[in-house]
Amino acid sequence: MTDLSQRLRSEAASLDQQDPLKHILNDFLLPEDCIYLDGNSLGPLPKAAKTRAKTVVEQQWGDDLISSWNKHQWIDLPAQVGAKIAPLLGAEASQVIACDSISVNLTKVLCAALHKCDKSLVLSQSDNFPTDLYMVQGLSDLLGKSKCELVCIDEDEILSSIDKYAEQAAVLMLTHVNFRSGRILDMAAITEAAHRHDILVIWDLAHSAGALELDLNGCNVDYAVGCTYKYLNGGPGAPAFVYAAKRHLNDIRQPLSGWMGHKKPFEFTQKYEAGQGVRAFLAGTPQIISMSVLDASLDIFNGLSAQQIREKSVSLLGFFEACFDALFLPNDGFICITPSEPCQRGSQLAYSHPDAYAICQALIDKKVIADFRAPNILRLGFSPLFLRHQDMLEAALRLKVVMENKLYLNSEYQVKHAVT
Amino acid sequence: MTDLSQRLRSEAASLDQQDPLKHILNDFLLPEDCIYLDGNSLGPLPKAAKTRAKTVVEQQWGDDLISSWNKHQWIDLPAQVGAKIAPLLGAEASQVIACDSISVNLTKVLCAALHKCDKSLVLSQSDNFPTDLYMVQGLSDLLGKSKCELVCIDEDEILSSIDKYAEQAAVLMLTHVNFRSGRILDMAAITEAAHRHDILVIWDLAHSAGALELDLNGCNVDYAVGCTYKYLNGGPGAPAFVYAAKRHLNDIRQPLSGWMGHKKPFEFTQKYEAGQGVRAFLAGTPQIISMSVLDASLDIFNGLSAQQIREKSVSLLGFFEACFDALFLPNDGFICITPSEPCQRGSQLAYSHPDAYAICQALIDKKVIADFRAPNILRLGFSPLFLRHQDMLEAALRLKVVMENKLYLNSEYQVKHAVT
Repeated sequence: MTDLSQRLRSEAASLDQQDPLKHILNDFLLPEDCIYLDGNSLGPLPKAAKTRAKTVVEQQWGDDLISSWNKHQWIDLPAQVGAKIAPLLGAEASQVIACDSISVNLTKVLCAALHKCDKSLVLSQSDNFPTDLYMVQGLSDLLGKSKCELVCIDEDEILSSIDKYAEQAAVLMLTHVNFRSGRILDMAAITEAAHRHDILVIWDLAHSAGALELDLNGCNVDYAVGCTYKYLNGGPGAPAFVYAAKRHLNDIRQPLSGWMGHKKPFEFTQKYEAGQGVRAFLAGTPQIISMSVLDASLDIFNGLSAQQIREKSVSLLGFFEACFDALFLPNDGFICITPSEPCQRGSQLAYSHPDAYAICQALIDKKVIADFRAPNILRLGFSPLFLRHQDMLEAALRLKVVMENKLYLNSEYQVKHAVT
Repeated sequence: MTDLSQRLRSEAASLDQQDPLKHILNDFLLPEDCIYLDGNSLGPLPKAAKTRAKTVVEQQWGDDLISSWNKHQWIDLPAQVGAKIAPLLGAEASQVIACDSISVNLTKVLCAALHKCDKSLVLSQSDNFPTDLYMVQGLSDLLGKSKCELVCIDEDEILSSIDKYAEQAAVLMLTHVNFRSGRILDMAAITEAAHRHDILVIWDLAHSAGALELDLNGCNVDYAVGCTYKYLNGGPGAPAFVYAAKRHLNDIRQPLSGWMGHKKPFEFTQKYEAGQGVRAFLAGTPQIISMSVLDASLDIFNGLSAQQIREKSVSLLGFFEACFDALFLPNDGFICITPSEPCQRGSQLAYSHPDAYAICQALIDKKVIADFRAPNILRLGFSPLFLRHQDMLEAALRLKVVMENKLYLNSEYQVKHAVT
């Protein structure tokens, strides 16, 4: 061990020692010797989720069968899960509900927002996660451009775009943390600027919820959506969530008006009447096994403050960068595309590199699980609940081995998989 | 034991002995001594589903984490599940895909159908399952009545209504088996009649798939949706499915155009381009745990023919009726609202009774699990894969105990639960 890595190792140990969240690692089941830097894509398995999966399948479904809708309150899960997510968003329990996917929920909130004004443009950042843009395109094709038209704007020009499109813009739909770069947008300032022109604001919190401090109510956000399988560790494809401002709760109008969103679903009446508040966003029968596992996973957050979580995340990113900078001279072709200021970035670092795909594969073979995002981004996610500073150093050291030995030139690392 | 019940018991034993599906019961985990007549609401737990739930959670999610999208082909699950359902529908694998809920999928197929013509009426039966009507209402509110307007028609007057609304009707959307009465509509004749007036036809197969012989391709059906948690035993709220006729596969246009339906989802391009064929119905990320459990559950159907399943169902219903008629004189106020002809009914029997709710609760206490449907229906589902003729007799005998001793008058059976 070199003096340098010894110094970093002792620094890591000291930071981990002081970490108020260090005990949370015990709540997860992680493969041995694996450094999992992909919790921003799929959070790992909480112990409680494993137990609940067994319970919901074997006892609730297996033994109690249909009676579980009452006996185990399956019917309440969407609201119960929403209530657990709410404090992480700066929202009240009654404002959040779990259902469907982000994609489907975006259509609901887009329609709810468009219903409230007679303008038609939906502004969104060009580099938004694609499904967000696709959902607006789908709605625009359905309604016609006179009712809904997508305008992509540059992430660097959001405030000036708001002014430019003030007369025509109905909705501003933004992802809070960019899925590639990790850059955070200023939710408070942007929402306020949009509201000055009567533009409603939808935030996608896919890369925010569970990793950042959020204050949706304080920022006067109109609607938000987010996913639960990243920093919330809810399991692969776990149900998404929807948030609505209190001022909108009493008149939510959205077209996916399925029976679960009905005021009295089990009266089987012919005419739809929306349920109270955020329940009006429910559509069909929830996927109970996935939803139950999510419900159990969220209990990890019980008693943790978003501030603590955020501080841990900032510390991890900072320490990884320190290791990276200390170990890599002259950086081997990596260019960090994530902002360097902690307040401007989420819980991930993204490096462009011409060989990013192969480097990612070689790293995975070294049990450092990162991911690749087209066209040339190596993306490292730093999930604050289960990672330690010593993992940051170890990841940097393994990356150094990959780069120094040019392991990424191995031809098998060039073969792209279906999901990358 | 009376002579009568002894005779019925020996008849049941003989029918069970000859049942070619008798070994399938072993594929399920059912609570002891329970006669589960609610498989038409929530199918019971297959052994394979229990095993898969453990595998998908502990090994795939827990150990293999994000790599499972490739390694365990999570990405292929919607098509793989669709391919397993297809033979039960009289469809080819490429025509069926699993995703979302029936409610959400109805909006997709309604939009796909409405896109193909310039008429606006959507005809549906008044007594359709409510969510089907609600989804049309939601779309109508969004698009305006000039683009989409719901017209409810009487189930007894479907053919004449097709003629009556021939000029204005764009779509006929029907549920194949009525959720209350169990009555089957004539898919071939109705679809053909609608097509004569260029009306596209959507069938909801919630109470058909897995219990009846279906021939969607033979009947020239345009689109169909269905759920998998009833006779397909996929687990509570398991993902639904969508079917499209081959002639529609190359130009599916639907507004819930999420990234999973994109031609190349992992290229993260800004513009939506629909994936091939039925994949264009996919929206957001699938709920993998629920979807995996469904995938395993469907393997029970491997090697079974829909004809065998249907014959077993007909035999069960007939034998239950024989027991009921033999044991109940003078029927204690029950009126069977299900058609008496086997070819006119699905795999359930529905009895109206002024005390239906309390009778249902008393029966459940006797471990005969049935359900209640407003306003006064006792609904008994006869899932052909795990029920035996001896269960039919036993259910009738326990019902007789409830009725003869007026157990349903017990005041605690009057209290209604949230889900009934």
